[in-house]
Amino acid sequence: MVGLCGGADFSVPDAEAVLPRNLCPLIKSFYGFKLNGTCPYFQSSDLVVGETTCDGKKKVYELLNELIPTYVLEIPHKPDTPAGKEFWLKELDAFKLKMEDLTGNKITAEKLKAAIELINNKRKALKRLSELRQKNPPPISGLDALLIYQISFNDDPVRFTAKVNELCDELDQRVKDGVGVTSKDAPRIMISGCPMAIPNWKVHSILQETGANVVVEESCIGTRYFTDLVEPKGDSLKELLWAIVEKYSAIPCACFTPNERRVKSVTDLAKQFNVEGIIYYTLQNCHDYNVESVKIDRVAKTAGLPMLKIETDYAMGDASQIKTRVEAFLEIIQGKKGF
Amino acid sequence: MVGLCGGADFSVPDAEAVLPRNLCPLIKSFYGFKLNGTCPYFQSSDLVVGETTCDGKKKVYELLNELIPTYVLEIPHKPDTPAGKEFWLKELDAFKLKMEDLTGNKITAEKLKAAIELINNKRKALKRLSELRQKNPPPISGLDALLIYQISFNDDPVRFTAKVNELCDELDQRVKDGVGVTSKDAPRIMISGCPMAIPNWKVHSILQETGANVVVEESCIGTRYFTDLVEPKGDSLKELLWAIVEKYSAIPCACFTPNERRVKSVTDLAKQFNVEGIIYYTLQNCHDYNVESVKIDRVAKTAGLPMLKIETDYAMGDASQIKTRVEAFLEIIQGKKGF
Repeated sequence: MVGLCGGADFSVPDAEAVLPRNLCPLIKSFYGFKLNGTCPYFQSSDLVVGETTCDGKKKVYELLNELIPTYVLEIPHKPDTPAGKEFWLKELDAFKLKMEDLTGNKITAEKLKAAIELINNKRKALKRLSELRQKNPPPISGLDALLIYQISFNDDPVRFTAKVNELCDELDQRVKDGVGVTSKDAPRIMISGCPMAIPNWKVHSILQETGANVVVEESCIGTRYFTDLVEPKGDSLKELLWAIVEKYSAIPCACFTPNERRVKSVTDLAKQFNVEGIIYYTLQNCHDYNVESVKIDRVAKTAGLPMLKIETDYAMGDASQIKTRVEAFLEIIQGKKGF
Repeated sequence: MVGLCGGADFSVPDAEAVLPRNLCPLIKSFYGFKLNGTCPYFQSSDLVVGETTCDGKKKVYELLNELIPTYVLEIPHKPDTPAGKEFWLKELDAFKLKMEDLTGNKITAEKLKAAIELINNKRKALKRLSELRQKNPPPISGLDALLIYQISFNDDPVRFTAKVNELCDELDQRVKDGVGVTSKDAPRIMISGCPMAIPNWKVHSILQETGANVVVEESCIGTRYFTDLVEPKGDSLKELLWAIVEKYSAIPCACFTPNERRVKSVTDLAKQFNVEGIIYYTLQNCHDYNVESVKIDRVAKTAGLPMLKIETDYAMGDASQIKTRVEAFLEIIQGKKGF
């Protein structure tokens, strides 16, 4: 749900008539979209499914529930404790019952297995696309790749997967032909941090204007979404649900504590994508990602990579300021390369 | 731990050398106290025990753990689900093992029962003190009562309980003699919201200067701490631990979702204490309490009570501005009374 209508500034003023202003823009955006009735996904939904990944969303779902039925699935925050995972499994079980009750359809092991495969195939296509961006020059821009990741939450998964694979065939050819979206010397940038819900293209657009390449997003709309598959160890319903718990508890999301997997992930991705600089992206008032920047800053220092932290919302008032900072940042990177 | 050294501004600049600035002052304060080594409780502790009540604390405990061993106990956020309570019980069990390992002392049912009684007695004394503040005029100022609530986290519980009961005996006499700290006409104010760790007396001091009476704190340093007792249904270790889970999951803290108990609690307290106005108190960047103000504002409107929302940190830069707002707020209350 949040992936669908939570990335635009125009619904924020409506939300601020009810919510405090100093909340994350994603939260204000989705709440405003329901309040002003302008998101078709909200308007055609019978139920919104939320989670307890952060304080802001958790509390605003209570208010959203006054506008549209909202079911909150609790996510334990210590991902590696057996008791936490067992609790998560129980939460999934309760959610399964809720969905069966709402739809009148029984969730069988067979159907769930097919659904897992369907979404795994989507993840594989996205991962294939991501890996093509490791090439130099990259055959697709960061902005275009971001849009594809974003609509992966909206589009029909079968069609989407087929179309992404078709696109990757074209990009394979580009790579063979040595065709890229920039020169080989353009700085290769990782964006690490908060998700960017559609239509939030702010930072990618600014980077594209400056001539840099965003080659990887260490983000929940990025590698955190598609890197790992759901891999059941058997075909029973319990084994399938357990595989979902295992997959999601291994996501290096800042909502988890501690989140050493993210430190490792950023280190690994920086190498795999030949990254030359990290832009740490925090939505305003997102404590999880804001505090975790301390650890990612150390990762960058250890790897000898310049890091620029950008904390922003969806409004364009700070776009010029961000562009100036990005330009100075790129000069540091080019300076290190001797340009 | 947080109750001990998280209420002062002077450690905040130290913390801000590491942490983002736009975090809750309580979090920055406690982290700064450990960083600069000025809190004797931190310096003499072998272990800090944290919890997952909010994003900011959860993530900063990771960094605190680099300075002093920090054990994080997970608190489920949907308080009324049986699965959540079972998970909490498992977290308590694991914590018990950790404490036994650290101290070399076995936590037996007998010892735990005695400890529960000890702290219940402290809660009863605090509740007795609180109920004396229902009188008009109140026999003790809000500022003095706040200090007593605050030191309840630091002082030896046996001595503290005895001294609070002695004080209450004196206050009983004051009530009999009709002696109060203000006139009978002074506005009776409830403060509802974030906890105030020692030495955070900012809002109470301002209110006292204006001549108003703070008669009740709907706060974790206030009614949420002492209203309910831990009430075991048996003497086995499991029953005792279960009683702790039941007590803590019934606290109307904004970390829970939904938190309808708080709506009821504020309504009830307003009646019990003959409250004439509510000051909604939010520490800066505390999403849980900030968002929940929307619901408490409705409570105030339903009860016909004026409400003033104050969002502040520990610095005194906004003290004059807050005083001006409080004075205007008190005029509204006096206006309603026909003064």
